[in-house]
Amino acid sequence: MKRYSTARRALPAPGRALDDGEDSAGGRGKWSGAMGYLSRSVFRDRLARIREALGEADLAALVVLTPENFLYVSGYFLDVQPWERPVAAVVPRDEDPFLIMHELSTNHVRYANEHDSMWIREVHFYAEHYRLHRRTYLTPQWPQMAADLLRRKGLGRGRLGVDSAGGPITRVPDLLPDLRLVDAGRILREMRMVKCEEELALIREGAELSDWGQARYRDHLAPGRPLAEIDTLVAHEMAAEAVRRFPEYKVEIRVSGLTGPNSACPHGISGDYGQVVEAGHGIVNIVIPRLNGYVCENERTFFVGTPTREQASAFEAAVEAQAAAAEAFVAGAAMADADAAAQRVFERRGFADRIIHRTGHGIGLAGHEHPDDIAFNYRPLVENEVWSCEPGIYLYGVGGFRHDDTVIVKAGRAEITTRFPRDLESQTIPAKGGRGR
Amino acid sequence: MKRYSTARRALPAPGRALDDGEDSAGGRGKWSGAMGYLSRSVFRDRLARIREALGEADLAALVVLTPENFLYVSGYFLDVQPWERPVAAVVPRDEDPFLIMHELSTNHVRYANEHDSMWIREVHFYAEHYRLHRRTYLTPQWPQMAADLLRRKGLGRGRLGVDSAGGPITRVPDLLPDLRLVDAGRILREMRMVKCEEELALIREGAELSDWGQARYRDHLAPGRPLAEIDTLVAHEMAAEAVRRFPEYKVEIRVSGLTGPNSACPHGISGDYGQVVEAGHGIVNIVIPRLNGYVCENERTFFVGTPTREQASAFEAAVEAQAAAAEAFVAGAAMADADAAAQRVFERRGFADRIIHRTGHGIGLAGHEHPDDIAFNYRPLVENEVWSCEPGIYLYGVGGFRHDDTVIVKAGRAEITTRFPRDLESQTIPAKGGRGR
Repeated sequence: MKRYSTARRALPAPGRALDDGEDSAGGRGKWSGAMGYLSRSVFRDRLARIREALGEADLAALVVLTPENFLYVSGYFLDVQPWERPVAAVVPRDEDPFLIMHELSTNHVRYANEHDSMWIREVHFYAEHYRLHRRTYLTPQWPQMAADLLRRKGLGRGRLGVDSAGGPITRVPDLLPDLRLVDAGRILREMRMVKCEEELALIREGAELSDWGQARYRDHLAPGRPLAEIDTLVAHEMAAEAVRRFPEYKVEIRVSGLTGPNSACPHGISGDYGQVVEAGHGIVNIVIPRLNGYVCENERTFFVGTPTREQASAFEAAVEAQAAAAEAFVAGAAMADADAAAQRVFERRGFADRIIHRTGHGIGLAGHEHPDDIAFNYRPLVENEVWSCEPGIYLYGVGGFRHDDTVIVKAGRAEITTRFPRDLESQTIPAKGGRGR
Repeated sequence: MKRYSTARRALPAPGRALDDGEDSAGGRGKWSGAMGYLSRSVFRDRLARIREALGEADLAALVVLTPENFLYVSGYFLDVQPWERPVAAVVPRDEDPFLIMHELSTNHVRYANEHDSMWIREVHFYAEHYRLHRRTYLTPQWPQMAADLLRRKGLGRGRLGVDSAGGPITRVPDLLPDLRLVDAGRILREMRMVKCEEELALIREGAELSDWGQARYRDHLAPGRPLAEIDTLVAHEMAAEAVRRFPEYKVEIRVSGLTGPNSACPHGISGDYGQVVEAGHGIVNIVIPRLNGYVCENERTFFVGTPTREQASAFEAAVEAQAAAAEAFVAGAAMADADAAAQRVFERRGFADRIIHRTGHGIGLAGHEHPDDIAFNYRPLVENEVWSCEPGIYLYGVGGFRHDDTVIVKAGRAEITTRFPRDLESQTIPAKGGRGR
């Protein structure tokens, strides 16, 4: 079992660094090596590319303040909300990176180190409480702590890139008058768009699990059943399956659906909690696993009982539009052309006025990522970008019609990772059965 | 059934307003009147207080850009992420409020109006897609749309309060040179801290449901069971119970736990997904319902098998500290004194160095709200503030020890809304049984 080693590498001050001798229970953690987590070579590659970007932008360091970027540069799943417990991952152009964290994360950092999933070992903790001994910076002193650390690291003057505006970092230049903060959000935003093979492998594993979940979802659909029960039952079944497939991963699962007229709301928070599946309803669901940080989307439209002509017509338009768009996620094609491919189908089939959202968005560490402007973005698609592909049609009073696949941009032919059936026959469930089937 | 009436009140331009005649399916929505949602009198009260604050701060209007504040002023559960699809709720000092929203929300707005849960009916939509007819502002034109609307409303000059920094609103003053944006986040932050009776009623209902969930959680704990299965099974059971109790509410349920040494991480994202309950483990869980927007926290520590002396000692300290702090949530007492009450117990019992987070935080529309600085805040507690009360002890290699109640500040005596047992005997489960029991 690996032992936690921050203390030997961290500066003794400022900020409280972990002391190996302070806890008699050391080594009793349970983790033993990372499975399915990104490797050190991914970290080294990211570090090299960040440093190259810092050089191009004439920045002495990148200061990362937001959760997904924090995970991206450190391998650490942030366990606090930065608005109340600010963190920083500082990646200097020429020196080793280091972290500023809240002491609430102390044990989590130890376990992450034992698990060997955390890439940055120098951690400086600030304290939530006054102490009688081993005093250190308190939460309100965050700007002073950051300023002192930056000065000691030779980063107290010049240009420092930050990945987001606001928060206590903005008060640091008052303490370091020769320091200037520069918006550098672009650096990680662009890096995160194109995935490496290890990231793609996690997304593919998530996609397979989501297909498994869709099959469970279809099995449970029946008239008389509250959808909230089905959503949470499928989430439970997927959790049990994830324990079996990926016992050493970090897994998050989100399952939700809307039934009947409520499904005309794309983002699934309309309708009463007690909405019940009825014969004749269309159901639009969302099945989203996140494996070791990486998200995939898998959304399907089902019918309980034979759909009306109006439902079938909208469904077929959505299927055709989705297929047309998915095929357009080919390296070198313009992003906006993938969106246009779906729109063209909807217009031809008479649904031009029913388009209320884009065809897709980047996906990765967050469910929605950049690029978020597919309808307006004329840049070429790049190999190994990952996109949701989810053009939808929404008819007020009738329902929604949307399939959503997670697609990897490849040269020549897009890779569609989610493979659950899309056709009307597969998606139609007999309207017999009922509550408690 | 109520009909959607935005179009009659909205300006025909700028921005696309809904047209009553545009959808033949009008009135086919399923909702029929709000149950358990906040009443119009709550809205009128909030509006009056916002206007008073605007007057005091010499602001012509408040522009609300963030999801929970958007819900607070409009009654509308935001269904988009503002970083990619910006919204604004504009509350002028002297005129009716209005909304700027993305067309993705169109049907959701209609249903919310039918449901009569949406307080602001004047909605201006911008479009995601180019259109051949009925053209309107596109997403990238958000600043122009906002500027044009503000000018037409007589808000194109003077001081405008905004509830958060950043986003496209910051580009509006370039288009309206006589307009100045002023940080007014304080107004809603302070208003949201003290709850009205209707808000408290929802929090109490959530607390009862969470106690019900804790009992289910205790029933399922047994050696050999993966915790992810228990978490999701309890969430499923709570969903079914919520369908029964609150079929017309909006309900969200979050259940998660950590077992054994992993439970030493306060925020519950450490450990492998497949972590399994073992005899001798302590388990710290989180059961958090959100009913019609209002959150309560209910967290408990269980033991599977008789705890060791070390476990029992930390548990008893946490129970005593939590009771001391809970009693301190009395109107007029200093906030920091509630935190100090817990710390005093921990110091007396020899756990002074194990405190790594505050005793509590405000709670309401978000799980963590202001006040977030209880350890440093010397202002008096105010009647009907709602707090989490969750002092905890975390021993690396051993586990965590934390009970969390949702507490309402009252004169004379705090009201503790979550009532599941806290004592060692109730929380200890025999270590027999096993997987599949």
